[in-house]
Amino acid sequence: MLLKNKLRNLLAGAALVVAMPAMAQQNPAADSVTIRKIYDNALTSYKSYEDLRYLTKNIGARLSGSPQAAAAVDWSKKVMEDMGLDRVYLQEVMVPHWVRGEKEVGRIEGKKKQDVAIAALGSSVGTGKKGLRAEVVEVHSLEELKNKDVKGKIVFFNRPFDNKHIQTGTAYGGAVDQRGGGPVAAAKQGAVGVIVRSMTNDYQDVAHTGNTKYQEGVEKIPAAAISTNGAEMLSKMLKDDAKLKFFMRMNCETQPDVKSYNVIGEIKGTEKPEEIIVVGGHLDSWDLGEGAHDDGTGCMQSIEVLRLFKDMGIKPKRTIRAVMFMNEENGLRGGLKYAEEAKAKGEKHIAAIESDAGGFTPRGFGIDGNDGQYSKVLTWKNLLAPYGLHDLTRGGGGADIGPLKGQGTVALIGFRPDSQRYFDYHHTVIDTFEQVNRREMQLGAASMASLVYLISEYGL
Amino acid sequence: MLLKNKLRNLLAGAALVVAMPAMAQQNPAADSVTIRKIYDNALTSYKSYEDLRYLTKNIGARLSGSPQAAAAVDWSKKVMEDMGLDRVYLQEVMVPHWVRGEKEVGRIEGKKKQDVAIAALGSSVGTGKKGLRAEVVEVHSLEELKNKDVKGKIVFFNRPFDNKHIQTGTAYGGAVDQRGGGPVAAAKQGAVGVIVRSMTNDYQDVAHTGNTKYQEGVEKIPAAAISTNGAEMLSKMLKDDAKLKFFMRMNCETQPDVKSYNVIGEIKGTEKPEEIIVVGGHLDSWDLGEGAHDDGTGCMQSIEVLRLFKDMGIKPKRTIRAVMFMNEENGLRGGLKYAEEAKAKGEKHIAAIESDAGGFTPRGFGIDGNDGQYSKVLTWKNLLAPYGLHDLTRGGGGADIGPLKGQGTVALIGFRPDSQRYFDYHHTVIDTFEQVNRREMQLGAASMASLVYLISEYGL
Repeated sequence: MLLKNKLRNLLAGAALVVAMPAMAQQNPAADSVTIRKIYDNALTSYKSYEDLRYLTKNIGARLSGSPQAAAAVDWSKKVMEDMGLDRVYLQEVMVPHWVRGEKEVGRIEGKKKQDVAIAALGSSVGTGKKGLRAEVVEVHSLEELKNKDVKGKIVFFNRPFDNKHIQTGTAYGGAVDQRGGGPVAAAKQGAVGVIVRSMTNDYQDVAHTGNTKYQEGVEKIPAAAISTNGAEMLSKMLKDDAKLKFFMRMNCETQPDVKSYNVIGEIKGTEKPEEIIVVGGHLDSWDLGEGAHDDGTGCMQSIEVLRLFKDMGIKPKRTIRAVMFMNEENGLRGGLKYAEEAKAKGEKHIAAIESDAGGFTPRGFGIDGNDGQYSKVLTWKNLLAPYGLHDLTRGGGGADIGPLKGQGTVALIGFRPDSQRYFDYHHTVIDTFEQVNRREMQLGAASMASLVYLISEYGL
Repeated sequence: MLLKNKLRNLLAGAALVVAMPAMAQQNPAADSVTIRKIYDNALTSYKSYEDLRYLTKNIGARLSGSPQAAAAVDWSKKVMEDMGLDRVYLQEVMVPHWVRGEKEVGRIEGKKKQDVAIAALGSSVGTGKKGLRAEVVEVHSLEELKNKDVKGKIVFFNRPFDNKHIQTGTAYGGAVDQRGGGPVAAAKQGAVGVIVRSMTNDYQDVAHTGNTKYQEGVEKIPAAAISTNGAEMLSKMLKDDAKLKFFMRMNCETQPDVKSYNVIGEIKGTEKPEEIIVVGGHLDSWDLGEGAHDDGTGCMQSIEVLRLFKDMGIKPKRTIRAVMFMNEENGLRGGLKYAEEAKAKGEKHIAAIESDAGGFTPRGFGIDGNDGQYSKVLTWKNLLAPYGLHDLTRGGGGADIGPLKGQGTVALIGFRPDSQRYFDYHHTVIDTFEQVNRREMQLGAASMASLVYLISEYGL
């Protein structure tokens, strides 16, 4: 940064500080004590972590429409009912029901045959019992695909994460178009199947699933993720033998929609109950692993925020709602439903915070709001800094809370934990309880609770 | 923070910024580009991570005096020689040679017998083949011990980590006196043995070893760490049956000192070669596990700093030395030797940075230096912030670089990674390569390299 800019920022900061008292009657000394107590409580409690253990180990993976997703709804409702909240209720929503079926088979058939780990992409059609066998065309982008003759072939999208990004989410964002848009683009050019390099920074033998999308009028072709080690091997073998074939068999299918629910727990505000602050995660997960970091931790942290308020006897001035959204992974129906009902009821949301980036050590929050809202959050900088919450930047939000955008002046806020390990586990069989550290998860919950507390006291 | 203080800090900051150009001809725009390139290089390189794999998997645990420690010396010297540094050399030092012997046996003998995980503390004497069996007196501090009759008994130090601390190192600091000072204090009151609750935040079944100290003239009694789950169980069983006995058997012993080495690699400075910047970790580890986070990562990161300079063609103005210190864990002989030789040679160290807190995501640096040195580091705040290095606070350093203190005006700097998981693995069988994430480790190396770069350009 240039000196001139530095001075300008400094002066802007000074203006902000001086202006503060006029903005709201804040009491940073008292808030600092309350926030410290929130962390003390969270760091010495095992409730939420043990709840996560139950969700991941006893219920397990919980894809929308599955019996486990239904069990997670019942159980998380009961967990909140047992807390003596002001209100706990379900919000009905029809969700897609995609079923993976048997474990997929993926095999490189060149001079020798080599099994590799694949996982059908969510929403994908199956290959039929006989499987699909075809030559492979490797590409690194949807753009590169355009110039390729892929008729009758399997398109292999193999652009890796750009590891130079400090935030792994940025690398994910730069690669995930292959998974989301690859199958339609390939089908339009006559391809018969798609395999996509797994969305991860790491070299691994596990495949990372995730949703893909078909398009009306374009043939639905089978699509699978291949492990990064498998992708490296396939790419190497293709260089030696461009005519090798890839065999994939998967019997996944989409079944009729199923009735499911968002699960909502609420503490009514004492002074402005009509102003609602949402804190949430998504209750559904992919069917592989246990959905621990994605997004068991976000759900348990959201409930933990309410538990902290209850246990500490904090009576929030504004209403706080923990929302376990259903169907983030393959449809977003829960998020859409929540926003739709909020609109229909004329509810006034002032902020919605989502935790859907893993239960790792908190680094801050991303704020998608207007200048006033962002400035208000910045006035709390010194209250949050002792807890490592330095990343208070613009942009953020979350998939489930996204549909609330534009309803009044709601600020959408994304909880930002450390991102380095997230895509090691994301959408895989290894996203398990064992990968979650109690302290990291609880620091996250305390961070969310602290921000919710400040918003509930002072509005946004 | 009160508004008044906030304004005062702000004005102090402004004064600093305005004064900057007079202090040194810094070029933050160019430095920003260089630092970005350092991160780009580190995040896309696998050299250091693969070296760590070799150190942990092929050499393994490397307690001072062990054949593995000797192998680590030879290997790390060769690694640096292959890099084409200006100078690679060994610094001879005699180190203690303590040997654990067979796996220890720990057993609670109450109404039923219950095996629990124990690990002899480093430097401890053994129990003899027959083992040691005695009643147990539980205490929670050295202070509490004073009022207890422990003659002929085993003292059980059971004060847990205070989990309310945000930094786990602070919790460690608040509990570790039991391990270091417990055996002498207990022996002075006639105890026959000591067991100490493992130094960890977590509930686990693994015991955490670590050094203890005897005192001349006080009887050396056997001392072991007990797993936290074991400690909880023992405490509970003692409440039911104060007369239960604890059985421990360990045949550890201290053998004669062994010749070993610090391993040092150097890039000579182009403008002020006499000004030395040390970046280091310790090459020895405990004999359990693989010494991955403690301190394989610190060593590999230190070498990586030199690799980054070489690979990027950065010719530092001041001399940079990577030092693999020997014997941090149970004697600090390497650190003492290094400082002694530096003094004897009249070397001028301007800064020493140690990485000995794990290979986790970097959060900043702790600076033990004078006001001028600390202010100088703060002028680089905006260059480091984009990489999550917000914790630039006073205090820090590291055990191995500690003995340099007072030699001229050397600043001692401790690299600060995220601390949450460190004591999950510290000094145990589970401190293995698998617990290290390549990106986190490399972000740490890049952080160290960036700070070393700035110091090498502008001095301190």
